[in-house]
Amino acid sequence: MAKDRLDATFSALADPTRRAILARLALGETSVTDLAKPFDMSLPAVSKHLKVLERAGLISRGREAQWRPCRIAPEALKGVDDWLDHYRRLWEERLDRLDDYLQTLQGKEKTSGRKKQHRP
Amino acid sequence: MAKDRLDATFSALADPTRRAILARLALGETSVTDLAKPFDMSLPAVSKHLKVLERAGLISRGREAQWRPCRIAPEALKGVDDWLDHYRRLWEERLDRLDDYLQTLQGKEKTSGRKKQHRP
Repeated sequence: MAKDRLDATFSALADPTRRAILARLALGETSVTDLAKPFDMSLPAVSKHLKVLERAGLISRGREAQWRPCRIAPEALKGVDDWLDHYRRLWEERLDRLDDYLQTLQGKEKTSGRKKQHRP
Repeated sequence: MAKDRLDATFSALADPTRRAILARLALGETSVTDLAKPFDMSLPAVSKHLKVLERAGLISRGREAQWRPCRIAPEALKGVDDWLDHYRRLWEERLDRLDDYLQTLQGKEKTSGRKKQHRP
Protein backbone atom coordinates (compact mmCIF):
# COMPACT_ATOMS: atom_id res chain seq x y z
CA MET A 1 0.00 0.00 0.00
CA ALA A 2 1.39 3.41 -1.00
CA LYS A 3 2.59 5.75 1.77
CA ASP A 4 0.02 8.47 1.04
CA ARG A 5 -2.83 5.94 0.96
CA LEU A 6 -1.81 4.78 4.46
CA ASP A 7 -1.63 8.45 5.53
CA ALA A 8 -5.23 8.96 4.35
CA THR A 9 -6.46 5.69 5.89
CA PHE A 10 -4.93 6.32 9.34
CA SER A 11 -6.07 9.95 9.27
CA ALA A 12 -9.65 8.92 8.41
CA LEU A 13 -9.65 6.34 11.22
CA ALA A 14 -8.48 8.89 13.82
CA ASP A 15 -12.06 10.12 14.35
CA PRO A 16 -14.55 8.22 16.56
CA THR A 17 -17.59 9.22 14.42
CA ARG A 18 -15.90 7.89 11.27
CA ARG A 19 -15.04 4.62 13.05
CA ALA A 20 -18.69 4.40 14.23
CA ILE A 21 -19.85 4.93 10.61
CA LEU A 22 -17.60 2.05 9.50
CA ALA A 23 -18.97 -0.15 12.29
CA ARG A 24 -22.51 0.59 11.06
CA LEU A 25 -21.57 -0.08 7.40
CA ALA A 26 -19.94 -3.39 8.38
CA LEU A 27 -23.54 -4.57 8.99
CA GLY A 28 -24.61 -3.70 5.46
CA GLU A 29 -24.96 -0.86 2.95
CA THR A 30 -27.25 2.04 3.81
CA SER A 31 -28.36 5.50 2.65
CA VAL A 32 -26.79 8.66 4.07
CA THR A 33 -30.13 9.57 5.70
CA ASP A 34 -30.37 6.25 7.56
CA LEU A 35 -26.69 6.44 8.42
CA ALA A 36 -27.11 9.91 9.97
CA LYS A 37 -30.06 8.92 12.24
CA PRO A 38 -28.23 7.44 15.25
CA PHE A 39 -25.53 10.12 15.17
CA ASP A 40 -27.52 13.23 16.07
CA MET A 41 -25.62 15.12 13.36
CA SER A 42 -26.70 17.21 10.41
CA LEU A 43 -26.66 15.55 6.98
CA PRO A 44 -23.88 17.91 5.77
CA ALA A 45 -21.75 16.96 8.80
CA VAL A 46 -22.22 13.24 8.04
CA SER A 47 -21.53 13.87 4.34
CA LYS A 48 -18.24 15.52 5.27
CA HIS A 49 -17.16 12.44 7.24
CA LEU A 50 -18.25 10.20 4.35
CA LYS A 51 -16.09 12.21 1.93
CA VAL A 52 -13.05 11.68 4.17
CA LEU A 53 -13.78 7.92 4.35
CA GLU A 54 -14.32 7.77 0.58
CA ARG A 55 -11.05 9.60 -0.20
CA ALA A 56 -9.26 7.12 2.08
CA GLY A 57 -10.80 4.24 0.11
CA LEU A 58 -12.60 2.97 3.22
CA ILE A 59 -16.11 3.29 1.74
CA SER A 60 -17.62 3.47 -1.72
CA ARG A 61 -20.83 5.18 -2.83
CA GLY A 62 -23.38 3.62 -5.17
CA ARG A 63 -24.19 5.34 -8.45
CA GLU A 64 -27.94 4.64 -8.36
CA ALA A 65 -30.07 7.63 -9.38
CA GLN A 66 -32.56 7.51 -6.49
CA TRP A 67 -30.14 6.97 -3.64
CA ARG A 68 -26.40 6.60 -3.31
CA PRO A 69 -25.93 3.82 -0.76
CA CYS A 70 -22.71 3.78 1.26
CA ARG A 71 -20.75 0.55 1.43
CA ILE A 72 -17.69 -0.35 3.46
CA ALA A 73 -14.59 -1.09 1.35
CA PRO A 74 -12.67 -3.38 3.71
CA GLU A 75 -9.66 -3.78 1.38
CA ALA A 76 -8.27 -0.46 2.72
CA LEU A 77 -8.32 -1.98 6.22
CA LYS A 78 -6.37 -4.95 4.90
CA GLY A 79 -3.67 -2.40 3.98
CA VAL A 80 -3.51 -1.37 7.65
CA ASP A 81 -3.36 -5.03 8.66
CA ASP A 82 -0.46 -5.68 6.26
CA TRP A 83 1.40 -2.71 7.75
CA LEU A 84 0.71 -3.98 11.30
CA ASP A 85 2.13 -7.41 10.38
CA HIS A 86 5.67 -6.01 10.62
CA TYR A 87 5.05 -5.28 14.32
CA ARG A 88 2.92 -8.27 15.33
CA ARG A 89 5.95 -10.28 16.44
CA LEU A 90 6.98 -7.42 18.78
CA TRP A 91 3.79 -7.26 20.83
CA GLU A 92 3.35 -11.05 20.80
CA GLU A 93 6.86 -11.47 22.26
CA ARG A 94 6.09 -8.77 24.81
CA LEU A 95 2.86 -10.52 25.86
CA ASP A 96 4.65 -13.90 26.01
CA ARG A 97 7.26 -12.40 28.35
CA LEU A 98 4.48 -10.91 30.50
CA ASP A 99 2.82 -14.36 30.62
CA ASP A 100 6.10 -15.99 31.71
CA TYR A 101 6.59 -13.33 34.37
CA LEU A 102 3.05 -13.80 35.76
CA GLN A 103 3.51 -17.58 35.85
CA THR A 104 6.80 -17.12 37.73
CA LEU A 105 5.00 -14.87 40.22
CA GLN A 106 2.16 -17.38 40.64
CA GLY A 107 4.72 -20.16 41.11
CA LYS A 108 6.40 -18.17 43.89
CA GLU A 109 3.05 -17.51 45.54
CA LYS A 110 2.21 -21.22 45.50
CA THR A 111 5.60 -22.08 47.00
CA SER A 112 5.27 -19.46 49.76
CA GLY A 113 1.65 -20.60 50.30
CA ARG A 114 2.84 -24.16 50.87
CA LYS A 115 5.52 -22.95 53.28
CA LYS A 116 2.85 -21.10 55.28
CA GLN A 117 0.79 -24.30 55.53
CA HIS A 118 3.77 -26.11 57.03
CA ARG A 119 4.04 -23.51 59.79
CA PRO A 120 2.35 -24.39 63.09
CA MET B 1 -8.88 0.30 24.10
CA ALA B 2 -10.54 3.64 24.90
CA LYS B 3 -11.90 5.70 22.02
CA ASP B 4 -9.58 8.65 22.59
CA ARG B 5 -6.55 6.37 22.82
CA LEU B 6 -7.43 4.94 19.37
CA ASP B 7 -7.90 8.53 18.10
CA ALA B 8 -4.37 9.39 19.26
CA THR B 9 -2.88 6.16 17.89
CA PHE B 10 -4.43 6.49 14.42
CA SER B 11 -3.60 10.19 14.30
CA ALA B 12 0.05 9.50 15.20
CA LEU B 13 0.28 6.79 12.53
CA ALA B 14 -1.09 9.09 9.79
CA ASP B 15 2.36 10.57 9.20
CA PRO B 16 5.02 8.75 7.10
CA THR B 17 7.93 10.11 9.16
CA ARG B 18 6.37 8.83 12.38
CA ARG B 19 5.79 5.41 10.77
CA ALA B 20 9.43 5.42 9.61
CA ILE B 21 10.54 6.24 13.17
CA LEU B 22 8.54 3.25 14.45
CA ALA B 23 10.09 1.02 11.78
CA ARG B 24 13.56 2.11 12.98
CA LEU B 25 12.66 1.56 16.65
CA ALA B 26 11.31 -1.91 15.86
CA LEU B 27 15.00 -2.83 15.31
CA GLY B 28 15.98 -1.67 18.80
CA GLU B 29 16.12 1.32 21.14
CA THR B 30 18.16 4.33 20.10
CA SER B 31 18.98 7.92 21.06
CA VAL B 32 17.16 10.87 19.49
CA THR B 33 20.39 11.96 17.80
CA ASP B 34 20.91 8.58 16.12
CA LEU B 35 17.23 8.41 15.25
CA ALA B 36 17.37 11.81 13.53
CA LYS B 37 20.39 10.95 11.32
CA PRO B 38 18.69 9.18 8.37
CA PHE B 39 15.75 11.60 8.31
CA ASP B 40 17.51 14.80 7.24
CA MET B 41 15.46 16.67 9.86
CA SER B 42 16.39 19.01 12.69
CA LEU B 43 16.46 17.55 16.20
CA PRO B 44 13.50 19.74 17.29
CA ALA B 45 11.44 18.45 14.33
CA VAL B 46 12.24 14.84 15.28
CA SER B 47 11.50 15.60 18.95
CA LYS B 48 8.08 16.94 17.96
CA HIS B 49 7.26 13.67 16.14
CA LEU B 50 8.51 11.68 19.16
CA LYS B 51 6.20 13.64 21.47
CA VAL B 52 3.21 12.74 19.27
CA LEU B 53 4.24 9.06 19.29
CA GLU B 54 4.79 9.15 23.06
CA ARG B 55 1.39 10.75 23.76
CA ALA B 56 -0.20 8.01 21.61
CA GLY B 57 1.58 5.38 23.73
CA LEU B 58 3.48 4.10 20.68
CA ILE B 59 6.93 4.78 22.14
CA SER B 60 8.42 5.26 25.58
CA ARG B 61 11.48 7.28 26.59
CA GLY B 62 14.15 6.07 28.99
CA ARG B 63 14.84 8.04 32.18
CA GLU B 64 18.63 7.67 32.10
CA ALA B 65 20.49 10.90 32.96
CA GLN B 66 22.95 10.83 30.07
CA TRP B 67 20.60 9.90 27.23
CA ARG B 68 16.91 9.20 26.97
CA PRO B 69 16.69 6.24 24.57
CA CYS B 70 13.48 5.83 22.57
CA ARG B 71 11.78 2.45 22.58
CA ILE B 72 8.83 1.20 20.61
CA ALA B 73 5.79 0.32 22.77
CA PRO B 74 4.06 -2.25 20.55
CA GLU B 75 1.09 -2.75 22.90
CA ALA B 76 -0.56 0.36 21.40
CA LEU B 77 -0.38 -1.34 17.99
CA LYS B 78 -2.09 -4.39 19.46
CA GLY B 79 -4.99 -2.01 20.25
CA VAL B 80 -5.22 -1.20 16.54
CA ASP B 81 -5.06 -4.91 15.72
CA ASP B 82 -7.91 -5.66 18.16
CA TRP B 83 -10.01 -2.94 16.51
CA LEU B 84 -9.21 -4.34 13.04
CA ASP B 85 -10.34 -7.80 14.15
CA HIS B 86 -13.99 -6.71 13.83
CA TYR B 87 -13.44 -6.14 10.11
CA ARG B 88 -11.06 -9.00 9.26
CA ARG B 89 -13.91 -11.31 8.25
CA LEU B 90 -15.17 -8.67 5.77
CA TRP B 91 -12.00 -8.39 3.70
CA GLU B 92 -11.25 -12.10 3.97
CA GLU B 93 -14.71 -12.90 2.53
CA ARG B 94 -14.13 -10.31 -0.18
CA LEU B 95 -10.77 -11.86 -1.11
CA ASP B 96 -12.28 -15.37 -1.05
CA ARG B 97 -14.99 -14.24 -3.49
CA LEU B 98 -12.30 -12.68 -5.71
CA ASP B 99 -10.37 -15.98 -5.60
CA ASP B 100 -13.49 -17.93 -6.59
CA TYR B 101 -14.15 -15.52 -9.43
CA LEU B 102 -10.58 -15.80 -10.75
CA GLN B 103 -10.72 -19.59 -10.57
CA THR B 104 -14.02 -19.55 -12.50
CA LEU B 105 -12.37 -17.34 -15.13
CA GLN B 106 -9.33 -19.63 -15.33
CA GLY B 107 -11.64 -22.64 -15.59
CA LYS B 108 -13.44 -21.03 -18.52
CA GLU B 109 -10.11 -20.21 -20.19
CA LYS B 110 -8.96 -23.83 -19.80
CA THR B 111 -12.25 -25.11 -21.26
CA SER B 112 -12.11 -22.72 -24.21
CA GLY B 113 -8.39 -23.59 -24.61
CA ARG B 114 -9.26 -27.28 -24.84
CA LYS B 115 -11.97 -26.55 -27.36
CA LYS B 116 -9.44 -24.69 -29.48
CA GLN B 117 -7.09 -27.71 -29.39
CA HIS B 118 -9.85 -29.93 -30.71
CA ARG B 119 -10.37 -27.69 -33.69
CA PRO B 120 -8.58 -28.70 -36.92
